[in-house]
Amino acid sequence: MTKHLQRDLEEIKQHVLKMGGLVEDAFHQACAAVALRDGTRIETAGTLERRIDRLQLQIDEEILKVLALYQPVASDLRFVTAAMKIVNDLERIGDLASNICERMRQLIDATELGEPVEIERMMELCTGMLRDALDAFVRSDSALARDVVGRDDEVDRLNRGHFDLLIRRMRKDPDAVETAVAVLSISRNLERIGDLATNIAEDVVFVVDAVDIRHQDLERE
Amino acid sequence: MTKHLQRDLEEIKQHVLKMGGLVEDAFHQACAAVALRDGTRIETAGTLERRIDRLQLQIDEEILKVLALYQPVASDLRFVTAAMKIVNDLERIGDLASNICERMRQLIDATELGEPVEIERMMELCTGMLRDALDAFVRSDSALARDVVGRDDEVDRLNRGHFDLLIRRMRKDPDAVETAVAVLSISRNLERIGDLATNIAEDVVFVVDAVDIRHQDLERE
Repeated sequence: MTKHLQRDLEEIKQHVLKMGGLVEDAFHQACAAVALRDGTRIETAGTLERRIDRLQLQIDEEILKVLALYQPVASDLRFVTAAMKIVNDLERIGDLASNICERMRQLIDATELGEPVEIERMMELCTGMLRDALDAFVRSDSALARDVVGRDDEVDRLNRGHFDLLIRRMRKDPDAVETAVAVLSISRNLERIGDLATNIAEDVVFVVDAVDIRHQDLERE
Repeated sequence: MTKHLQRDLEEIKQHVLKMGGLVEDAFHQACAAVALRDGTRIETAGTLERRIDRLQLQIDEEILKVLALYQPVASDLRFVTAAMKIVNDLERIGDLASNICERMRQLIDATELGEPVEIERMMELCTGMLRDALDAFVRSDSALARDVVGRDDEVDRLNRGHFDLLIRRMRKDPDAVETAVAVLSISRNLERIGDLATNIAEDVVFVVDAVDIRHQDLERE
């Protein structure tokens, strides 16, 4: 039975990685939509989203089957419950990537802002965080996962900076309002993607090191 | 052993409900902050958030213990895995409630908009959705849970309406920018709370009826 369990766990892992690859593709579409000011990426993102959603339902079923059939314990149990959370977070990242594409679709023909908004820097950071969180998952690399967690502050900082900058811009230039609101929305979506990549990395640390590093501020009280 | 399992499942249920109550309190603080234009609620929300986070960590541990000790199957297994997801969604609603309080704190002394933004209607809808999703969970009432799922469209519609309205407002009144951006952000947070209450309701349907009603658009293709 242990052999069957290991085979099924490996299958779940492969499906999570496949889902992760699709989510990375969806996020890549979103980044290209923003960088190239291309409003047509929404269709590709939508197709990817449906494949992502299907995989989510399938993996959730596989996880329930493994729990019911083999009653895994210790690290196998941590792996299975973490996989359930990771699948949830990946699906949400796919949603957010679609949101970004949708925003860009609405922006066609809108005013170019020409402000030095650091959206590209946020996209680079998030791309790296997502890639490394998935790599950490596949390689059971908790050091890499902890490194991902540490990068989220920079994403948050960039997002906050956008707020101040774009509010000032809208005050002095009413024509910039629509674009600025869209850029704010994209910035906020990226900030959430950073959070979710962080969640995935925290789950990897839990699987590998058997410690729950979420809500660390609670310990410090 | 079945008796012990049932006792531990009941304990998890009680803790999820306790967490749900705290999240409802946090959301109530957020609603009061907005309705009364009161920027001081952030502290109460912060205290609640820490209690919510602690319960999340505790319940997740209890769930792992139940999975490892009793290897539940069928409806017990569905209950446990759904509880894990619900706890995640509840924690996120608590976060969003804190975000709303934080937004109101920043708004003190900012321009009053005086626009007929339907934030209060969104808050009412979300309050009802959260309450009924938790009620459906405690009473294993899938009809009520399905009803909650059906209400989310109205929340989404109100949120989209705010965008058009507030963008127009900012274009003609630069002094309204800061407040309008905050209202947009509150509206978006409420829309997410509606989504998460919907997720909880979907999980309740899964526990009670053993059907996964997420991503129903996939079936219709």
